[in-house]
Amino acid sequence: MLGVRRRLGRQLSSTRQGTDLLTELAQDTTGLLPNQDSQLSAVSDDARHVLHPWADLSSLGTHESLIISEAKGVHVVDGNGKTYIDSIGGMWCVTLGFGREELVEAIADQARRMAYYTPFGDVSSEPAAKLAAMLSERSPGDLNRVQFATGGSTAAESAVRIAHYYQKSQGRPDKIHILSRRNAYHGGTYLAASLSGKLADRTLFHYETDIVHHMKSPGFDPDISDVSAEAFLADLIDDMERTIAEVGADRIACFIAEPIMASGGVLVPPPGYQKATLDLCRKHDILYISDEVVTGFGRLGHFFASETRFDIVPDMIVTAKGLTSGYQPLGAVLISDRIAAAMSEAAPKDKPVFSNGFTYSGHPVACAAAIANIEIMEREDICGHVRKVGPYFIDKLKALRSSPIVYAVRGDHLMACVECTVGMETGPTARNMALAQRVDRYCEEAGLLVRPYENLCILSPPLIVTERHIDSIVAILGASIERAGKDLRAGEI
Amino acid sequence: MLGVRRRLGRQLSSTRQGTDLLTELAQDTTGLLPNQDSQLSAVSDDARHVLHPWADLSSLGTHESLIISEAKGVHVVDGNGKTYIDSIGGMWCVTLGFGREELVEAIADQARRMAYYTPFGDVSSEPAAKLAAMLSERSPGDLNRVQFATGGSTAAESAVRIAHYYQKSQGRPDKIHILSRRNAYHGGTYLAASLSGKLADRTLFHYETDIVHHMKSPGFDPDISDVSAEAFLADLIDDMERTIAEVGADRIACFIAEPIMASGGVLVPPPGYQKATLDLCRKHDILYISDEVVTGFGRLGHFFASETRFDIVPDMIVTAKGLTSGYQPLGAVLISDRIAAAMSEAAPKDKPVFSNGFTYSGHPVACAAAIANIEIMEREDICGHVRKVGPYFIDKLKALRSSPIVYAVRGDHLMACVECTVGMETGPTARNMALAQRVDRYCEEAGLLVRPYENLCILSPPLIVTERHIDSIVAILGASIERAGKDLRAGEI
Repeated sequence: MLGVRRRLGRQLSSTRQGTDLLTELAQDTTGLLPNQDSQLSAVSDDARHVLHPWADLSSLGTHESLIISEAKGVHVVDGNGKTYIDSIGGMWCVTLGFGREELVEAIADQARRMAYYTPFGDVSSEPAAKLAAMLSERSPGDLNRVQFATGGSTAAESAVRIAHYYQKSQGRPDKIHILSRRNAYHGGTYLAASLSGKLADRTLFHYETDIVHHMKSPGFDPDISDVSAEAFLADLIDDMERTIAEVGADRIACFIAEPIMASGGVLVPPPGYQKATLDLCRKHDILYISDEVVTGFGRLGHFFASETRFDIVPDMIVTAKGLTSGYQPLGAVLISDRIAAAMSEAAPKDKPVFSNGFTYSGHPVACAAAIANIEIMEREDICGHVRKVGPYFIDKLKALRSSPIVYAVRGDHLMACVECTVGMETGPTARNMALAQRVDRYCEEAGLLVRPYENLCILSPPLIVTERHIDSIVAILGASIERAGKDLRAGEI
Repeated sequence: MLGVRRRLGRQLSSTRQGTDLLTELAQDTTGLLPNQDSQLSAVSDDARHVLHPWADLSSLGTHESLIISEAKGVHVVDGNGKTYIDSIGGMWCVTLGFGREELVEAIADQARRMAYYTPFGDVSSEPAAKLAAMLSERSPGDLNRVQFATGGSTAAESAVRIAHYYQKSQGRPDKIHILSRRNAYHGGTYLAASLSGKLADRTLFHYETDIVHHMKSPGFDPDISDVSAEAFLADLIDDMERTIAEVGADRIACFIAEPIMASGGVLVPPPGYQKATLDLCRKHDILYISDEVVTGFGRLGHFFASETRFDIVPDMIVTAKGLTSGYQPLGAVLISDRIAAAMSEAAPKDKPVFSNGFTYSGHPVACAAAIANIEIMEREDICGHVRKVGPYFIDKLKALRSSPIVYAVRGDHLMACVECTVGMETGPTARNMALAQRVDRYCEEAGLLVRPYENLCILSPPLIVTERHIDSIVAILGASIERAGKDLRAGEI
């Protein structure tokens, strides 16, 4: 049940399979020569002083991290000068690729002009105001009010806190409970981690369990399911209705949901699920929060997927990651005008202060990056590009199902995963995880970074990937799967 | 009980008292000419689309924010081209002042070279590794292990979650309760807001109350107290002992405390308080988390104030704000090696993953800014400068106590506040708040930004302020106090 796989024998590996493909592709990283001394001290400083998110705690102080030093386009270079295709987009976020001079200039210009001023109360900055207007223009329905945060976790927390405020302001102080799903991921703060439903992440921390309720995981794969999509959906809705009845609709503030679950394992709900859950929420005065931290900003071919792809106009949308192409930490909640107006009207006369937000909410430099990011996305029609290459990516990956060690390939446009199996068993068993780990290692050796999670290899490349890049990613992944399959048959796993 | 004062009649104000002082000082902002069109659209976009932290919710959509457009040194310029001395340092954070080209270059260079890569598991970047080592060198005791976050809220949450993990890993699963104080401020996320003890902030949100306990506020002012510091301290310690006994030491994970309370009203504990509370924590196996988001990075004349000023080596230190001089969103928890090693040794063998942290933990661009920030601070001996001008600042401010409307002036080095009173009553009454609001408005008219909170004017200028800047700040503040006092006597407040 490891959430993170340890990299084994990085320094000893000499295999270079796939490097020919890579060399050909990596022309744009030529000239990036990491400094060997700073690389050495980075490895030792990192081992000695950093506690990483999702670290293997048992190897603290002895781990040897992969230091990413340089990056350009869809490629990254480690401290030893080795180039990789980055098929995880930094971490779902570097949508426009690395080394975009226009983003760099936008960041530098704002930092030079006015790096920071408080966003509290009635003080603001031009980038924050402009970005809020740009987000409102591109959001569905009446989601025209923006509260900024510093990333996905703080934006998700803000959305839930806003739901609490809204319900209480409407005279419903008991509506504080939150519906989530198993396998959901909504962040790393106390409440966000409690909303998350990934069993692999639950460890010795403390979680809020009184007001959080996890319903069934909605992931449906038509390739392997033995029930129909309709039957699967009916069961999910039945489960949600049952949960609402058990908790009591008059006690539930909101439902938070990724349209497609991302880090929980790229779990795609059956068609109609988002709309059916929204209808249930409307029926019971439960606010619907769509967590588009991953699905937004082009990954599914649209700025926001909620309405265009899934036919829902939620009450709030949570966004982060692709919002700045990862170049700056930033998150935001887009809020329905209806909700905002209702809160404003009902704000206590003697204490109308809306005490939610952060010193770095709407940081001017981060907002400047987001503005430039949107401008580039539209000028280059990144969403249109994703709608074109996305299906190509999924089709190519699906071909990997012919391998006996691939149990499933699933995804949508530029978010996908490959699920490994030793053959007799499915799910995150020790052997299945060891097998996926082997695939991951061979990919890394061959110059491809994929995101390991349990027995999955998760892929979320920069949105600028071309069909040629996709061919290389799938070729290296396919060759690595083949090597790992041979190891399995040779009894080495 | 307003946490935010509405700015009244900003566009109508024509008074320019104090502008002569300012004009003389503002030489370094010459040439900063805001664009009038972007200013106009910023004001309307802001009103239409932004929900600010600590907004006056009742004026949503109709508020007219002050747009800060340009900034240089200790000065900021609004969208109308008016220059102000910034005596709040952005928001306690812009320690090195605005427009520092070296910080801009560090940010741009890193954004160009490698703007982002995941910090999860065993992947890292040179800036994060280097910064962690630099922080460890400058931290007290064995606080040599760093977990990064995106700001103060997420860093404070991380510290508490680490305390939970630590206690549970040591076989004490019931030690989940947290000690905090009334008037404390630890951030805006659900748990951080619940730890905070500012009554003015408690409104229609939901708070975690089961595991959070607020003890007495430790603020002691020798100028106005009618008990001795020793007696006041004894009462605080008695209150803490009683709370520990009531909750049960075997149920308490940690105590979180700002060495001097910042946004709660610049509340300075009596001498010996920090050490005495640490001793109590040690006695009961309660981890001590020192929240140095404000007091760290030079504001009290040291990188960290815990040991040098207050004789404590805590188990964890929370830092943010001055860490990057506010140029980038970043926070961090510095963790004792002893705690980190104990967690590592006790990590479950089948699930050693440390599932805490964020996509943007240790963002390379933010870490690059922090590295440059530390280098500048040391080269220019900013801490030494603060140790010199800090006492001058407090002395000058204390002279304002001669005004009948000033009830108290308190602070330490470059964090201070002036507390207003109409005379018959103290504390945040409606009239006292209206009076402070008038002072605030006159300061703003005269070209000085102070931070309004209840009936206080809070000051936390950039650390680069000179004695000449301080003279100007105090002169404008003094003149504004005098004007507001006249209004009061004329029955206008």
